[in-house]
Amino acid sequence: MKIHTKLLSALSSLALLVGSAGIHASEQKPNIILIVADDLGYADVGFNGSKDIITPNIDDLAKSGTSFSDAYVAHPFCGPSRAALMTGRYPHKIGSQFNLPTRGSNVGVPTDAKFISKLLNENNYFTGALGKWHLGDAPKYHPNQRGFDEYYGFLGGGHNYFPSQYQPIYEKQKAQGLKNIFEYLTPLEHNGKKVRETEYITDALSREAVNFVDKAAEKTNPFFLYLAYNAPHVPLQAKDEDMAMFPNIKNKDRKTYAGMVFALDRGIGKLVSALKKNNQLDNTLIVFMSDNGGKLSKGANNFPLTAGKGSTQEGGFRVPMLFHWPKHVPAGKRFSHPVSALDLYPTFAALAGAKIEESQQLDGTNMWPAFIKNENPHKDEPIYALRHRKGYSDAAIRLNQWKALKVNQQPWQLFNIENDISEKNDVSKSNKALLTDMVREMEKWSWDNQQPSWFHETTEGVNWRLDAMPRFDKTFKTTK
Amino acid sequence: MKIHTKLLSALSSLALLVGSAGIHASEQKPNIILIVADDLGYADVGFNGSKDIITPNIDDLAKSGTSFSDAYVAHPFCGPSRAALMTGRYPHKIGSQFNLPTRGSNVGVPTDAKFISKLLNENNYFTGALGKWHLGDAPKYHPNQRGFDEYYGFLGGGHNYFPSQYQPIYEKQKAQGLKNIFEYLTPLEHNGKKVRETEYITDALSREAVNFVDKAAEKTNPFFLYLAYNAPHVPLQAKDEDMAMFPNIKNKDRKTYAGMVFALDRGIGKLVSALKKNNQLDNTLIVFMSDNGGKLSKGANNFPLTAGKGSTQEGGFRVPMLFHWPKHVPAGKRFSHPVSALDLYPTFAALAGAKIEESQQLDGTNMWPAFIKNENPHKDEPIYALRHRKGYSDAAIRLNQWKALKVNQQPWQLFNIENDISEKNDVSKSNKALLTDMVREMEKWSWDNQQPSWFHETTEGVNWRLDAMPRFDKTFKTTK
Amino acid sequence: MKIHTKLLSALSSLALLVGSAGIHASEQKPNIILIVADDLGYADVGFNGSKDIITPNIDDLAKSGTSFSDAYVAHPFCGPSRAALMTGRYPHKIGSQFNLPTRGSNVGVPTDAKFISKLLNENNYFTGALGKWHLGDAPKYHPNQRGFDEYYGFLGGGHNYFPSQYQPIYEKQKAQGLKNIFEYLTPLEHNGKKVRETEYITDALSREAVNFVDKAAEKTNPFFLYLAYNAPHVPLQAKDEDMAMFPNIKNKDRKTYAGMVFALDRGIGKLVSALKKNNQLDNTLIVFMSDNGGKLSKGANNFPLTAGKGSTQEGGFRVPMLFHWPKHVPAGKRFSHPVSALDLYPTFAALAGAKIEESQQLDGTNMWPAFIKNENPHKDEPIYALRHRKGYSDAAIRLNQWKALKVNQQPWQLFNIENDISEKNDVSKSNKALLTDMVREMEKWSWDNQQPSWFHETTEGVNWRLDAMPRFDKTFKTTK
Repeated sequence: MKIHTKLLSALSSLALLVGSAGIHASEQKPNIILIVADDLGYADVGFNGSKDIITPNIDDLAKSGTSFSDAYVAHPFCGPSRAALMTGRYPHKIGSQFNLPTRGSNVGVPTDAKFISKLLNENNYFTGALGKWHLGDAPKYHPNQRGFDEYYGFLGGGHNYFPSQYQPIYEKQKAQGLKNIFEYLTPLEHNGKKVRETEYITDALSREAVNFVDKAAEKTNPFFLYLAYNAPHVPLQAKDEDMAMFPNIKNKDRKTYAGMVFALDRGIGKLVSALKKNNQLDNTLIVFMSDNGGKLSKGANNFPLTAGKGSTQEGGFRVPMLFHWPKHVPAGKRFSHPVSALDLYPTFAALAGAKIEESQQLDGTNMWPAFIKNENPHKDEPIYALRHRKGYSDAAIRLNQWKALKVNQQPWQLFNIENDISEKNDVSKSNKALLTDMVREMEKWSWDNQQPSWFHETTEGVNWRLDAMPRFDKTFKTTK
Repeated sequence: MKIHTKLLSALSSLALLVGSAGIHASEQKPNIILIVADDLGYADVGFNGSKDIITPNIDDLAKSGTSFSDAYVAHPFCGPSRAALMTGRYPHKIGSQFNLPTRGSNVGVPTDAKFISKLLNENNYFTGALGKWHLGDAPKYHPNQRGFDEYYGFLGGGHNYFPSQYQPIYEKQKAQGLKNIFEYLTPLEHNGKKVRETEYITDALSREAVNFVDKAAEKTNPFFLYLAYNAPHVPLQAKDEDMAMFPNIKNKDRKTYAGMVFALDRGIGKLVSALKKNNQLDNTLIVFMSDNGGKLSKGANNFPLTAGKGSTQEGGFRVPMLFHWPKHVPAGKRFSHPVSALDLYPTFAALAGAKIEESQQLDGTNMWPAFIKNENPHKDEPIYALRHRKGYSDAAIRLNQWKALKVNQQPWQLFNIENDISEKNDVSKSNKALLTDMVREMEKWSWDNQQPSWFHETTEGVNWRLDAMPRFDKTFKTTK
Repeated sequence: MKIHTKLLSALSSLALLVGSAGIHASEQKPNIILIVADDLGYADVGFNGSKDIITPNIDDLAKSGTSFSDAYVAHPFCGPSRAALMTGRYPHKIGSQFNLPTRGSNVGVPTDAKFISKLLNENNYFTGALGKWHLGDAPKYHPNQRGFDEYYGFLGGGHNYFPSQYQPIYEKQKAQGLKNIFEYLTPLEHNGKKVRETEYITDALSREAVNFVDKAAEKTNPFFLYLAYNAPHVPLQAKDEDMAMFPNIKNKDRKTYAGMVFALDRGIGKLVSALKKNNQLDNTLIVFMSDNGGKLSKGANNFPLTAGKGSTQEGGFRVPMLFHWPKHVPAGKRFSHPVSALDLYPTFAALAGAKIEESQQLDGTNMWPAFIKNENPHKDEPIYALRHRKGYSDAAIRLNQWKALKVNQQPWQLFNIENDISEKNDVSKSNKALLTDMVREMEKWSWDNQQPSWFHETTEGVNWRLDAMPRFDKTFKTTK
């Protein structure tokens, strides 16, 4: 509610700002493209300083747009992070703090949490989702039910990349009459109808992105495209020609991963070309980001951040991100204030002129006014990460220059993250009152968290109950 | 949702079928009578081959109708099975997987699960319920609140049979000022008003059934009658004259039980006569069934099925059932495909031309089109049973000719139930992939089960929590 | 539902009664003032026989009104008791059976439980709340969102009394940038805006009460004032001049407590003067009561009741109470039948002519008809107390002359509370059937209790889960 109030006032500020910032009320509403890479490392794009992987097309966007040094997703792993992107809520507030059941189910991100796609669709946007869904595979959770006019992709949490490899396996199991075939092997679909894809999946999604833009450009209304690549998430499968781009990378996993990122970058290049061709680039906000930190054991690199996917250290949930929108987003800048993926929902809504009902709760803030003025959109407002493990939880709080961290049942630590990005120098002892205050604030935040509506595995749910989780008594303990 | 889609398509099929099947749009909607016996054994009706008990009137209906060899209820004991009949939902989906608290409560089957009686009532049916309710005894769960114009019976889970025996006990306790008198002893009621019944309860309910038909026949709208005998549920109390029909039965319990079934059969004879007298028989679908398997320790016989009430073996939830409707239901046939009690809701709705809202979830299928064509209404679609015990669950999956079974914390077994009705020959070893696939499918189904809204005893609920139930990690384990 | 039905019939009775009782349909609806003291002991007002503390103004109201010997609140401590006052529901029915989280949160008494203030406000009452809230400090739970036109006070569970003492501490911590400052120290507010209070808090609230009456008297509609003093709740802080009134009290705590009560009494005197001045006294029902029993370790006295705040013995939840309304409430009487704080909601509603929707559940009864006739409004209807502790619960049942008690995991006891007010003579052995029947009735009542929506401390919630609470198997055990 507090945040919501903030949002409303931010919306008002926006109304005042748009004149100077360049969006005139009479202007066309911008198209919005949200490109999400899967498990892409902080250091694995050129604009964040990658020394081995090249991402020329992404870098071009960064050069003519603004990149973010301190962009955080709402959760250090996939499903909850995506649920947050779509709903604007911390996954813990909507029972979505775990990945969906591995083997399928009838559960999904609750339908009373309105997706940004639904909101934009109701506000005259033509909407499309491509690629990985991972938000519920039962009919009522289907992208077409959640505000997307168009959907091409796969509903589960990932997919194999070469149709020529996975299709025979799928067909063999199908012929055996099995109903439960690993979701990484099942056919892709277009608006609920199975399709027989033939291209390398990353290329296929890029092709569909171009098709979507071509189609959208013919309409008079603006569009919203959610392009959710599964690359470079496992399985590590790259085209030979793409791996060949990295002759100096010797490690097999890293080389494959690099090839996967390169294919993704190629796709973004094609998408940008399609936007240009259709005369839409100048009127399109492109957001590029990762859904969480890179997985160090699977070829990714999050340098200089510590740890990776799954962690509440920076490597787990600080991600590469850029904005691109000629004449609106500053060119060639680096935005170094903290922002949250939760901010995208209210920001997109504000840019689209979409009214948010007072009863709809959102956990982020419209960052646009602060972004344009190069101010901190989260000044004195914490950004949280909370990852439940077996019998305890890891947690993190980013507040202004501070990062409070709790991992592996160790006491809370405090870092001045602005000058200690790798979380090496714990300054908790000299800032006890501040640290306690930050933890108390997170404890307050935690009281209206919801019990998980599902778990990834049945055992996880059993342990949750046996361990009387969430053990917030442990999580928010600041005394010995 | 999947099932719902199926239902809609089945409804469409029905629309095509009705011409040939004999229900013309212009025809009168059929009356529907659902007769449910309580704990009646599979082998305890003539039409299923009983060698000692005679049920001439029921057998007459079977002879001029169709009986079912493979009819399953949704739960192997009473309360949840009845909740499923009324709501068309697996009891686990609506928190109703236990019998209601023994000693009364304000809880009941959730009111947002629309009873079939409510749906039919809204579609111009005159509706009546007679006998055992067991779906909630607080005012908001009363039959009159759930779509029944008329109700005569008792709200709890059973009742003593001889008023001359139980009334004095009741009145003595009442005089002592006690508020909690065992529900088997309390007066029957008519639409919320206590009545002083004088007849043997089974005869009383039969009398009221006749009265209902007489009354209904005067109306222009069709009727729905839910006739829920408590016989032959304990206490085992039969009339001497009825027991005298079975001079060859020596076992006291079995003899009493036989007498109780005979009284029930006599009532059905009277009901059929009333239908004939009122010229309604030809326009009435009569469904006769048991709510679960017979209780072997209380006089019942489920031969050739293994085990009885409460079990996920066939004796627990495969029940005697017949359909009777001259010219619509084939005469003298045995339907040998699997059907579920969950199918009755959508089937009745289809026959009554009642539209089901898209938002209303149902777990069964309109079986009528397949039934008429003697096809399997559940081809490739599993039917489940899941019974929670202390710290673990028993489970069963019926799929085509297969029956997967988990009991007593033993590994899953698999039977070809079509030629191994007694579940003697476990073929799991030679069908591992199939069995695993079936269990995975049930695990998928289980994720949106609800926590129980009540337990039969307070201790049951405490143990549920202490044991971190439902322990689906154990239930759906297929590896060692 | 049962109670609700009772309410409706009571409302009808009221319709018949009002002629003789003096409320004519054409008469103006009465103003209603509900004054709640905090942790005030049963024996700490003159009208209940206090020998050391003097409360002349409260006693005047008692003398010209009716006091209650057997008035019970719905819970033996603060937050749940107040939730019950506002909602008319046992706190266990709305997940509010614990005090709100000590350190703040976004949770609060559920908004689907309509506050009496909301109902009266919808029925043309001008409404005001003053003082302690303790029902949710997030915006959606704010008094102004729950039916109060005016609010002046503090949202937490208590407050320090001297601004000159607490304000400097608050400002110092604020200057340090701390977000979590103890709620007893934060500024008071007026309709959401912080104010700089300067008076001793009890005097400040009395001043605002007078202001409210002055303002309300100018309107044509009736008013409802909820005056929630935090006195004499800890911290024990009294004005020197008030302590000086009690030279014979030597114990420091008792002396301070006495001074706090005296200040409260002074405020009530001022309020009554304001009512007289505005010509409103004759048209105002004043209810004065405590929210729970006095805390013996903090200066209170509950004589002759046993135990104090927090207990299910009489000292925990039987409280001082009086009604005052010239010509309507009998003057100088003592009402000795049991009444519940839950009765106030339906009673106020009836007096205000406010219709209660059939779907709204209430746990009390409109006591007015019985009160006027000096009859027992709860004849044969139990009043409960249930306090959850660590791994078990304490409980109490008041039914007619009986009081059943379960404390500290000991077996249930039974007292004839009418002649054994101090609960000294356990008569359970000679009344086993009655006691069992009372406990069974409470067990029935317990089934639709809700899980707590919050706990006072995170550890409390963890223990709740680890102990599989509520352990009603223990609570309602009547056999060995």
